[in-house]
Amino acid sequence: MPPDRTSVSVFGAAGFTGALAARLLYRHPYFELRALTARSDVGARLDDLYPFHRVPMVLDELDLDRHAEIDAAVVAYPHGAAAPLVAELRARGVRVVDLSADFRLRDPAVYEQWYRQHQAPELLSEAVYGLPELYRDRIRDAAIVANPGCYPTAAVLALAPLARAGLIEDLVIDAKSGVSGAGRAATAKTHFVTVDENLNAYGVPRHRHTPEIEQELAALGSDVQITFTPHLIPLDQGELVSCYATLSGSGSPEQARALYLEAYADEPFVELADQPPGVRDVRETNICRVSVHADQRTGRVIAFGAIDNLWKGAASQAIQNLNLMFGRPEAEGIE
Amino acid sequence: MPPDRTSVSVFGAAGFTGALAARLLYRHPYFELRALTARSDVGARLDDLYPFHRVPMVLDELDLDRHAEIDAAVVAYPHGAAAPLVAELRARGVRVVDLSADFRLRDPAVYEQWYRQHQAPELLSEAVYGLPELYRDRIRDAAIVANPGCYPTAAVLALAPLARAGLIEDLVIDAKSGVSGAGRAATAKTHFVTVDENLNAYGVPRHRHTPEIEQELAALGSDVQITFTPHLIPLDQGELVSCYATLSGSGSPEQARALYLEAYADEPFVELADQPPGVRDVRETNICRVSVHADQRTGRVIAFGAIDNLWKGAASQAIQNLNLMFGRPEAEGIE
Amino acid sequence: MPPDRTSVSVFGAAGFTGALAARLLYRHPYFELRALTARSDVGARLDDLYPFHRVPMVLDELDLDRHAEIDAAVVAYPHGAAAPLVAELRARGVRVVDLSADFRLRDPAVYEQWYRQHQAPELLSEAVYGLPELYRDRIRDAAIVANPGCYPTAAVLALAPLARAGLIEDLVIDAKSGVSGAGRAATAKTHFVTVDENLNAYGVPRHRHTPEIEQELAALGSDVQITFTPHLIPLDQGELVSCYATLSGSGSPEQARALYLEAYADEPFVELADQPPGVRDVRETNICRVSVHADQRTGRVIAFGAIDNLWKGAASQAIQNLNLMFGRPEAEGIE
Amino acid sequence: MPPDRTSVSVFGAAGFTGALAARLLYRHPYFELRALTARSDVGARLDDLYPFHRVPMVLDELDLDRHAEIDAAVVAYPHGAAAPLVAELRARGVRVVDLSADFRLRDPAVYEQWYRQHQAPELLSEAVYGLPELYRDRIRDAAIVANPGCYPTAAVLALAPLARAGLIEDLVIDAKSGVSGAGRAATAKTHFVTVDENLNAYGVPRHRHTPEIEQELAALGSDVQITFTPHLIPLDQGELVSCYATLSGSGSPEQARALYLEAYADEPFVELADQPPGVRDVRETNICRVSVHADQRTGRVIAFGAIDNLWKGAASQAIQNLNLMFGRPEAEGIE
Repeated sequence: MPPDRTSVSVFGAAGFTGALAARLLYRHPYFELRALTARSDVGARLDDLYPFHRVPMVLDELDLDRHAEIDAAVVAYPHGAAAPLVAELRARGVRVVDLSADFRLRDPAVYEQWYRQHQAPELLSEAVYGLPELYRDRIRDAAIVANPGCYPTAAVLALAPLARAGLIEDLVIDAKSGVSGAGRAATAKTHFVTVDENLNAYGVPRHRHTPEIEQELAALGSDVQITFTPHLIPLDQGELVSCYATLSGSGSPEQARALYLEAYADEPFVELADQPPGVRDVRETNICRVSVHADQRTGRVIAFGAIDNLWKGAASQAIQNLNLMFGRPEAEGIE
Repeated sequence: MPPDRTSVSVFGAAGFTGALAARLLYRHPYFELRALTARSDVGARLDDLYPFHRVPMVLDELDLDRHAEIDAAVVAYPHGAAAPLVAELRARGVRVVDLSADFRLRDPAVYEQWYRQHQAPELLSEAVYGLPELYRDRIRDAAIVANPGCYPTAAVLALAPLARAGLIEDLVIDAKSGVSGAGRAATAKTHFVTVDENLNAYGVPRHRHTPEIEQELAALGSDVQITFTPHLIPLDQGELVSCYATLSGSGSPEQARALYLEAYADEPFVELADQPPGVRDVRETNICRVSVHADQRTGRVIAFGAIDNLWKGAASQAIQNLNLMFGRPEAEGIE
Repeated sequence: MPPDRTSVSVFGAAGFTGALAARLLYRHPYFELRALTARSDVGARLDDLYPFHRVPMVLDELDLDRHAEIDAAVVAYPHGAAAPLVAELRARGVRVVDLSADFRLRDPAVYEQWYRQHQAPELLSEAVYGLPELYRDRIRDAAIVANPGCYPTAAVLALAPLARAGLIEDLVIDAKSGVSGAGRAATAKTHFVTVDENLNAYGVPRHRHTPEIEQELAALGSDVQITFTPHLIPLDQGELVSCYATLSGSGSPEQARALYLEAYADEPFVELADQPPGVRDVRETNICRVSVHADQRTGRVIAFGAIDNLWKGAASQAIQNLNLMFGRPEAEGIE
Repeated sequence: MPPDRTSVSVFGAAGFTGALAARLLYRHPYFELRALTARSDVGARLDDLYPFHRVPMVLDELDLDRHAEIDAAVVAYPHGAAAPLVAELRARGVRVVDLSADFRLRDPAVYEQWYRQHQAPELLSEAVYGLPELYRDRIRDAAIVANPGCYPTAAVLALAPLARAGLIEDLVIDAKSGVSGAGRAATAKTHFVTVDENLNAYGVPRHRHTPEIEQELAALGSDVQITFTPHLIPLDQGELVSCYATLSGSGSPEQARALYLEAYADEPFVELADQPPGVRDVRETNICRVSVHADQRTGRVIAFGAIDNLWKGAASQAIQNLNLMFGRPEAEGIE
């Protein structure tokens, strides 16, 4: 291997997001994809599980002595299982992008309220929330990047300009996601016949992405308790958040668009549209497409954010973060 | 024809809702389906246009002298075009269920603000809003029944118990509909490739069903300006409304479910569920499936209503209304 | 219970076809649905598993002493597991419609070649192949009716007029099915993300429905080895067979249509169409829609058959058979 | 402009295939996309019509004086309309890749039998059939490349090894296509509600791609009259051909796979699979994925070919041809 390439492995590459991260890294001009590990399907080739990714590598059983000899790791483990592995990797000096929720919530008490007891709270202080549009500079130097949840990615980008201006007083977020958001596990809920010609809410009234969105809106300047309700939609990849914000006294809906134009003028992966975005507009891209509208009758602002949940909502955003962490052009390998 | 059967014709039977009304009436044990008229496809057989409806009747060009010799009419014309036809039919003594918006808004000024100048305002006083769960008794004697819009049907049924208790202070309705709601016209918006793997809001921020929902909530007891945003979903039939209600001071979210249990205990076509309803649960039925949930964190009530937009949202509700108007069992022909 | 109603139970009611049979029997005007048994989900209510069937009955664990006190049984067990249960039910005098393959193949050697060792070969002689259009009279008196496979139902009906005339010399059947044909088991193959925007053949080159189709074509008069290849299509219910028949010397493609018109003139559930049928035309019906076309260039006959795989391909055909077995109008409860 | 870039324009860029060609050329490292013309939507920006292509160029009305100052053209006009434009472009020395059928059939009499009178038969002699896997060398020097139809692309690649060995005696091709194959026109046939949960054959028994497939199989060595039947499937992009070949005396099904391995060992865009390919495996790629299977019982060979109809079946194959015509690496811009 040429010494100037940065080595990276994907841990948990059998799932949808890990496999996509593997595909993007396998073709990345800078990173060298060293190994793939998995907790199921060990010994299988990734291009048998996912022919369309065309990654001719075998899934290994985790062996840290062998697999931790790398510069960087993408960890795509479930919540709770990720933290111990991240701790092991950190102990060996590996920089990590973690796709689980384990390092997203800065307050371990909040994590425990919505998930479970935290397995590595001592590492929270070195984790940066991996939304480049908010934390670009801190990500560059981070040891652990907590890759955001798919819903929070879309929601925070759809609302950041309002939140930063401190304008959000009350907020309802109605979210819609394709089925890949539910992961690769074959269950009654992901069976084609359950989903097809169907449409329903889930996680009512307390979905786990709620505190993550609240945390980031508060960090921006709008400390608000939100109602967040996701729905399952019969499509494979794609996610839309429809955000209904009641403004605080000082705000008028008409000023919203100017805030968005200013906030996103130079963002390479946020696209501001006049019309409500469709998820097809961003399919298989790292782009979040946003629109914002004033509802004059009620004084509300309606903002939409559309992403591909597997890309900007997970795997390609992980690559965007890796690019930042290793001084590469932010869009390298994910354009 | 036996003199004891009530004759009915469908005007505008080439579209999705008119054709389904024709199918239901063709097999109805009481009504005699006399004729079908259409503004397009005149001369075609309905079972060539819609093989699955299996109605072997020809679409006629409208000829009032010939077609108005009936007891009842189902009018499935576009907004604006319906009112003049309804006026003609009323002049000949025909009782009408009108599927357009023309007689839904009691105040012609509101109609003109959201639609256009009204073509028959003098008839508004004899029209009854055709939501049987609210106006059952008045429908029995009505000369004109204004069949509700699909979104208002689901939304008003999902919210009526709260509204009647005067509890709704603020309200966001995020609605999702399958493509048949957009009608039979082949356009870029209804092209399979546009809709498939896609998902987007439309009619932002002012969809025409807004005043209809506000009118009925106010009539029940909650006079509120709402934000109503519909979305287009890649499925054929089915509609879900997700309603986010902020309660007035006197209400607590926990009491909501009791109100719903009481309100819908005896309603043949409203089904109260513990879990958020899916549109598949009500496909090809006249049922509205409702669930209600307290969001303790924010104090909001979240209510869902799922219908088949072509059935309870249009054609089968029209038959339900006809049954009431002619003294038949309410569920006859639509069970 | 009134003594004049015939009691029936469904064994294996948790799966797609058993549950649909339960729904149809629950609303059947003549049969009394006595009990539902299941091998999974024991104790669950059927209307929790399948809200849209609206059958408020609990799934019992099988207890023959209790459950065999009936006149008739619908058995919806997997292949191999069905035969022992059918034998038990027969020993208690119950007449059975069996939805598995266990009694479809008259020659146990063929069964063993394509499936496994037969568990009740002694009963094969009292089984009748349950395709009413071919065996109506024998079904009336049958003790065991072997309900046909979904593909054979469509294929044999699409080809019977040609086969009966002895005209088929060579035959390719390319079949396409919605996902419900794969059953309720949640697997990688039935995961929404696998099926959606996908399309592929399976069971190549030896699908188990091959010998069943060959058996029935031979019984009709065309003894031919066929190539049969099914494909999985991204839709829930619906099945299409496209049949490409090379005719024997005496046949001309032009005469085919006359044979079909004659064969199906009086069949209540076979519909002869001019255009290739779509599966939407027969959704949620007991109808097989057929068309036949001459390919003048090659001398082939192309015949299509479309059914709903869960209805005419399984559950509603089972009711059609029950109606025949108990002297009821053939279409009762399945129109 | 740097003098070393080759200029190219897309004529007919409003349709699905022209727009995709524009997207691929807009990002191509070698070609310079000079202009887009269209016959509808003149004046619209392509990124308004197709946001996901992200091509910020305006659709021009055709003005040959202005638009023909280029090195190469991609013509995406309908059959019949393409030939006169190609003739004009050739008169000005422009090299053309034509996506219509106008220059695919070498015998104008065959063209007229299946399409209409040919508008530029004098140019047929300078046209090369643009399937690189068959005509790579001739394409390099061609003035006109007739880009193959989508079905012929998949079918000829799925069958070429057998055809070249002269083994095909009789052939049935059952093809399945997503809706984008029907083009951008909004019609009853492409309406979401028509296609969704549906599945049917069309173009029975004479689809226009038949002579194109026969021509190429004959050129390879198997002169055979085929039965070709396409079906419309509820998905957006993707096409599968299922080919059922009866072999001539000298062939045995077992030898087929060896022929395929040899034929496709070095082809960059043909992928030989063990299992029947799915269209999802090739979505948004220039790849044709092929599998071949022996049906021992009947002696037939079953071969499958899966492509993305808009990519390898049209636009990306056009770029592959342009790459060859201008001495570029064959995969440039379409990997």
